[in-house]
This record gives sequence, structure tokens and C-alpha cells, in this order.
Amino acid sequence: MNTRLVEVRQKVLKQNDLLARALREQFQDAGVYVTSLVSSPGSGKTTFLEKLLGRLAVENRVAALVGDLATDNDAARLARATSQVRQITTGTICHLDAQMVQNALNGWNLNDLDFLFIENVGNLVCPSSYDLGEDMRLVLLSATEGEDKPLKYPTIFNTADIAIITKMDMAEAAEFNLEEARRSIQSVRPGMQVFEVSAKTGRGMDEVVDFLTSKRSSARPVSIR
Amino acid sequence: MNTRLVEVRQKVLKQNDLLARALREQFQDAGVYVTSLVSSPGSGKTTFLEKLLGRLAVENRVAALVGDLATDNDAARLARATSQVRQITTGTICHLDAQMVQNALNGWNLNDLDFLFIENVGNLVCPSSYDLGEDMRLVLLSATEGEDKPLKYPTIFNTADIAIITKMDMAEAAEFNLEEARRSIQSVRPGMQVFEVSAKTGRGMDEVVDFLTSKRSSARPVSIR
Repeated sequence: MNTRLVEVRQKVLKQNDLLARALREQFQDAGVYVTSLVSSPGSGKTTFLEKLLGRLAVENRVAALVGDLATDNDAARLARATSQVRQITTGTICHLDAQMVQNALNGWNLNDLDFLFIENVGNLVCPSSYDLGEDMRLVLLSATEGEDKPLKYPTIFNTADIAIITKMDMAEAAEFNLEEARRSIQSVRPGMQVFEVSAKTGRGMDEVVDFLTSKRSSARPVSIR
Repeated sequence: MNTRLVEVRQKVLKQNDLLARALREQFQDAGVYVTSLVSSPGSGKTTFLEKLLGRLAVENRVAALVGDLATDNDAARLARATSQVRQITTGTICHLDAQMVQNALNGWNLNDLDFLFIENVGNLVCPSSYDLGEDMRLVLLSATEGEDKPLKYPTIFNTADIAIITKMDMAEAAEFNLEEARRSIQSVRPGMQVFEVSAKTGRGMDEVVDFLTSKRSSARPVSIR
């Protein structure tokens, strides 16, 4: 990449960081806990999120923003779990940024929400540098993908807080080596907590729900709401 | 994206196009047929390519370049099929460009090759704008990914010549809807030829070998070698 491109990109990233910081304060003040999801295309983000929203919505007020280059297919799928869903279409841009998130929130009262999820564009590279003001970033890796993805895309794993291995129901058919995948994750991000889930069978989903609920309780004590 | 970033990026793309054109002429003169592969991470590019190289190597001289942000895992895997393999590690860059290809070819005699394959970084966005001087671009989509990927990432399908649906052995377990996937492909790229393969069982692999062999014969008649 040439030097000028790098310079311009750094300016864009700095602007994004400032806006993300403002968003984070806004989320904190409103008492909404914000989780973003990143992964390669086809790792099962939307199915995972649909099932997660359905479970969380029993006792919480939940909403989701979902990014894609084109189509509002994912928003339509998530709308089965909650009425508060908006699609962000990015055109040719391979990631969400803080400005897109701010625009998409227009008209929503954040005080009316307990959880907000932001599903990023399916991409293991571009989203890693863009802070969206989220409290927690989940990186998803499917059992059908290949155990060495964390080694090949270290930055996205390094900038995420938690790893979720999806499609565990297909692990056997895909000859997925769980131990190797866990080793790959630990070698790029030592100590990273990993959940194994299947949105299809429900395996591991309750653990994720409990985890996020407890995280929210610590980050957003009831007293400040 | 801001205007200045777009301008700088256009300059970079123009430089790339000029170099790609020079590469294409070089490939033509040497009689080597060049195929690139793009797809999301984990769609099975490397396994597909390993099996393809193995089959083609029976009667042809084959070589491969393989791009990743980090690791040379893929080159090590492809080296089981041909000794002519080089890894290109891109660092934080989400695609190959013509300059990286030219650098990686240094020291190889293209006249000694019949087929050269270039496996791009796993990404459904960034690689689409970068011409690598290839004759043919294959876009891979796995049966475990989701049938609407072409609708969500139209540019990468529009800039490819042929679509390959991989991991067909897992189609049933993944509840993959082949007709829907074909409709998605046709709606963004009407008339696009589609192959269905399983590198694991071998299904469809001979058809791809025959197709590429025949393409090479038309594009590189023996007389010019």
C-alpha cells in the first residue's frame, strides 16, 4: 500500500475513534449493553443472532443492527426474533463504521433497550480496525471453516473479546478438530474465552445468554438506569 | 468513505491495472494459462485447489501462488500436489494485487508452465477490484455458507467468470438449497456457468479439469508455444 493511502486511512480511523467514543458514552448513559459480531461470510452470524435474540427477548428489551453490502435479507430474518431491527447496507464498503451505526440508530430511544447487537459485514479483515462503540466484540468461527482461521486472520481475533465456535452440529461431518481450533485461538489470543454453540440444536446457547446477561449486570448496574 | 480516500484508491487501482495488463501479456507469451480463485475464508479454496493440482499435474506442468494475511499453511498444503508453490503473505491487506503476483513469480520460468493458479486472500469484498492478469477468475461458494451470498456480495460474483459450489458432500447436513443458490448466482450474473464439486468425494472435479484444459487449448494454441 502506498504511503499516502496509509496516511488518509489513519485520519479516517481517528475520526471513527472519536465518534465511537461518543457512542460508547451514549450507550453507557442509556443503560444499553452493546455487543458486535464479526466473522467470515457464511459462518452463521445471523442464525446465531436470531436464536440469541429470541432467548434474550424473553426477559429483556433487545434490538439489532445488521450490516451487509447489499440486500436486507438479514434484517428480515432477525425481525422474526425482535421488531427492533435495522439493516445497514454499505454498498462496496467491507465493514461498518461508527457513523453508520449512529445514523442507523436515528429515532430509536436507547433508554428503552437492554441489549443492542450490531452484526458487522461478513469479513475477517476490514472490520477489525473500526471501533463501533460496543462493549463486547464476538468473533465467530464455524466448525465447517478450518481450524487455522485464527492464525491466518490474527488481527480480527486479537481485536475481539470472545470467540464463538458455531455450527457444532456439523463438526463431525466436517471432520472439525476442536482441539486444534482452540489451540489456534489461544496462540493468537492467549486466555480468550471460547463458547461452542449450535444455533440449530441449541447447544451452548444458554451459556452465551447467561454470559451476556451477567456482563450486562456488571457493566450497567440497575442503579444507573 | 471520504472523497480523498476514494481518489487515492482510484490511483492505486489504475497502477494495478497497468501492471496486470503487462502480466497478462507475459502469461500469453509464455503459453501459461492463469486461473485465480476468490471466496470467503473457509469455503474450501485450498482443498479444492490441492485436488485440482493433483489431477492436472498428471498431464501438465502446474504451479500455484497462494495469498494469506499470515502463515504459510496453505503453501505447505498445496506443496503435496506440486513442488511449484509460493505463499504470498499480505500482512493487513485483504487482497492480492498485480505487484505482489509479479514479485512472487521472480525466478520462475513461465515457459516451463502450462497452468498457474493464484489463490487470493479469503475475502468476498476486497479482491474484486484487483486485476491480477489472470485469464479466468473462479468464485467459490460452499454448500455450508448460505444460498444468498451472491446477492449480498454481488461485485465479487460479477467480476468472476465461473462459480464453483464446494463441499457438496455436506449439502444435506447443511440443508443447502441448491436451486436457491443457483437462482442467487443467476440473478447477479445471468448465464454464469456453475460447477458443483466435492474435493472430498471427488464429485465434479473431472468436469472442472476438462473445462480448464479445454479453455487452455483455445486460449493458448500449441503452435504459439
